[in-house]
Order: sequence, then C-alpha cells, then structure tokens
Amino acid sequence: MTRLTIALVGAGSMGSAVGKLLSASGTRVLTTLEGRSAASAARAREAGMEDATLDELAASDFILSIVPPAVALDTAERLAPALTRAANKAVYIDCNAISPQTVATIAQTVDATGAAFVDGGIIGMPSSPKFYFSGPHAPLASALGDAGLAVRLLDGPVGAASALKMSYAGITKGLTALGSAMSLAAMRNGAGQALLDELAESQPEISAWLASNVPRMPPKAYRWVAEMEEIAAFIGDGFAEHRIYEGAAGLYARLATDKTATDALSRFFSETAR
Amino acid sequence: MTRLTIALVGAGSMGSAVGKLLSASGTRVLTTLEGRSAASAARAREAGMEDATLDELAASDFILSIVPPAVALDTAERLAPALTRAANKAVYIDCNAISPQTVATIAQTVDATGAAFVDGGIIGMPSSPKFYFSGPHAPLASALGDAGLAVRLLDGPVGAASALKMSYAGITKGLTALGSAMSLAAMRNGAGQALLDELAESQPEISAWLASNVPRMPPKAYRWVAEMEEIAAFIGDGFAEHRIYEGAAGLYARLATDKTATDALSRFFSETAR
Repeated sequence: MTRLTIALVGAGSMGSAVGKLLSASGTRVLTTLEGRSAASAARAREAGMEDATLDELAASDFILSIVPPAVALDTAERLAPALTRAANKAVYIDCNAISPQTVATIAQTVDATGAAFVDGGIIGMPSSPKFYFSGPHAPLASALGDAGLAVRLLDGPVGAASALKMSYAGITKGLTALGSAMSLAAMRNGAGQALLDELAESQPEISAWLASNVPRMPPKAYRWVAEMEEIAAFIGDGFAEHRIYEGAAGLYARLATDKTATDALSRFFSETAR
Repeated sequence: MTRLTIALVGAGSMGSAVGKLLSASGTRVLTTLEGRSAASAARAREAGMEDATLDELAASDFILSIVPPAVALDTAERLAPALTRAANKAVYIDCNAISPQTVATIAQTVDATGAAFVDGGIIGMPSSPKFYFSGPHAPLASALGDAGLAVRLLDGPVGAASALKMSYAGITKGLTALGSAMSLAAMRNGAGQALLDELAESQPEISAWLASNVPRMPPKAYRWVAEMEEIAAFIGDGFAEHRIYEGAAGLYARLATDKTATDALSRFFSETAR
C-alpha cells in the first residue's frame, strides 16, 4: 500500500480532528496556512499537518475541503489555477454542509481544471466522523478508508452525499431549533416548567434528546446559520417548507450572540437531565 | 355530587371523543347541531350528545369549545349574546390550539358577557386526552375531573394553558414537519434510503419516532395548517423563528391535498418500521 499524501483545507474543529485521524494512520497531511490565524496554524501543526503551497496541494493524492459552508466555493476557486497547472492532479473532494446546487457549481469549477471531483458529506461529531461519498469518481475515495477514515460509498450522482448531509442535519439541527424556539416561547409565556414536565411524561425520547443536544448548540450556532440557509436552498423556493430553515437560520443567528437566551436554554434543559 | 350539564361545541374527532368520555361518566352533554352536516350530527348523537339551543348551552355548568383553531373566536362570538342573557352563566372554557394572543381576544369577548373564562389546552390523542387549565377561574374547571376528564390545573394566567399546548405541538407537529420535509427532499435527490439507514443507525430514537408519527399525519394535515399559523403568531413577528412555523403551515397545506407525496412518505417510513 502506497503512503497517501492528502491535502486538507480547513482547520476548524472538524478539519483538525480529521487531520489528526489521517496523521495517526501514517498518512502525510498537507495544508495551507496562508492567511490563517496564529491559532489555526497552531491547531493545524498540532494535528500533524504540514504547511504547503497551493501547487503542492494540487499535486497530492486527494484534496479534502472541510470549511464553513459560506467559503466552500471560494476554496475550490482558490485551488483551481494550481489544479489546472498540476500534471498529476489530486482528486478534489468537497466534504462541506452545502446544498446539491452549490455542489454542482463547485463540481463545474473543478471539472474545468481536469481534476476528478467527488461529492462528500460528513455525519457525526469530530470525535467519530463518518464520510459519505457519491458521484462517478466516488470509488477513488475508498482509498481514504485505508488512511484512517470511516468511509461509505453512496450509489448516487454528485449531490447525493450532500443531499444526505443536508437532510440529516435538517432533522437533527432542525429539532434542536424547534426545541429551542418552543422552550423560549413557553418560558416567555409562563409555561416553561409545564412544557418540560409534559414532554418528560408523554415524549420521553424527545425530552431526553433535547436535554442532551440543546445545551451543546450555543457554541456552534454561528456556524449553523449558513448551514440552515443551505438546507433552505436544498429544499428550493418551489416548496413552502424551505421557510422552516430560513426561520431556523434566523434563530441561530440570534442565539449566536444572545447569551441571556442560551444560558436560559441550558438551565432549562439541565432541569430535564436531573 | 351534583350531576353536571356540559355544553360541548365541536364534534370533530377530539370533540366527539370528549363527548363520549363525559357521557360515559353520567354527565349530561349538550351541543348545537344547527348548521352541522348530517355526518357531524350523527357523530354527536352517537357520542351521547343532545341537541340544544344556544340559550340552553349558555345556561349549562360549563361550555367546552373544541373546534378548529380558525373558528375558535367565531364560536365565542356566536355564544356571547346567549351568555349575556343567561341568569346562571356557564363557565366558558376554550380548549383550542390557539395562541395566547387569540385566547386574550376570546377572553375579552366572554368577560363582556359576565361569564367566567378559563383557558384550556388539550394534549394527547382523542383516545386519552389530558386537559390543562389556567387563569384565575381555572379552579372551577377541576369539577371536570369528576366528569370523566383527566384534568391538570396550571398555576398561570389566561394564556399559559394555550402556551403549553402551542409549545408542545410546536415540537411534536414541528418534528413531523421536519421529518416529512427532509425525507421528501432526500428522495428528490437520490438520498432517501441513505437517510433512512443513517437515522436508524445514529439517531434510533428519532428514527422510530418519525416512523410511528409521520404516517399518521396525512389525514390531519389540513387541520394542522391553522395550528402552525397560530404557533407562528405565538412566537411573534419579533422573533425570526416564527418563520419555522409559516414554513410548516405551507408544507401541511400542500400535503393535505398531495396524495402522491403523502403516499411516498408512508411507504418511506414503513421501511423503517420493518
């Protein structure tokens, strides 16, 4: 088995966790620290990632893009000139929480460079991420299974892996939004304790799920805003339910900065946990 | 213990089920069949309810309004002249899935007649409904506990029982909306089976909950449209998350008539159940 060289763009909590998993398996992991903060650079080095030029990234075996949804397309555009120049082009894998429509735009950008494109979706926490891949070049990505990642190939076109990620996140992060919105509204109207008690009594599974998930949301709320907007785009303007996720984006945008509200939510759900 | 006479307005599935519970306990149950369909009249009689004039309803011990959210205010306005005329006025209990704001309007209408008003909220299926009551006159409604109903008094103002109903339904009927919206979008994008499998694997409680609840939604979708709109009003325009429920109202409005979509959803979730 040849030792793989993988370029990982993105050193957020998921990106650096994936970098550690790859390094631990003996894979060489490159990244670009150009324009990154000192904290990001330190996190990348700690994860065993080496700083490299864009041309070195483009000539690796795989490029994994693990970035905030809003910069997924920028990331592909930034790497496109180097991919065009490269003789042996990396397989470009977009792993971001973006709609199949956004994926299609990124795929076009990558296709134009002559590199192979794979659609990816990550499900799970940074401690145990599961990678879904789809599209005609997805079988190439099965090599990542030997590089320390949990890999699942989907029998579907470019867009299917992202559709899975969107629909899964739409249910889980959507339910976190419902629980937050309704708890805050119940508290504003003198029915908070009654709601907690009634949920615990007649919906024990949902009650336990919310108690475990809502208190973990606040530090992630700012990232979820763009993800909710991608889910709205995934549903499409032709379906009225896209507004569900516009509403969730608005909620998370407020909760990202409203510490009074998120403290109230955490206290509220810690009552259930007891 | 005096035998109660209770006026029940509304002969839908919940209303007629409550009529049966009351009759079975030996309570005399009056209703008005004026302007009702032959089917509603038959259902009311089968539930042991006697046809009566509005003046007879207004002179009973309690009036329970159990109607679609959109006609809750009309119901109070229709009974107001008879309540004003009555010497011994019934306690008027609104049990509908309406926002505290709508409840406040109904409370004003009833207050003007001189009758006592109680805010109510029903949680649970027609087979085992639980009645929450709030407001200064709520203790009067505890008499309904001897008339065959499961009664809980909330220590809160008029509006608290409705707030509980809204926030509980916003989570349960909201989650049904999320599961439906995301399953339909996943199916449209070739990721339906993968979503089912991933939910069953990593979110078994949600997976089981959706499999049990989504297939029961289609016949109720038309009623849930106005209920979702009431929940949006309950949250209020000042909070972006009210749009979550506008989106859910739009989804249920479509699913109320789109049998192709609801058949697809029922087949989809029957896969999980197996």
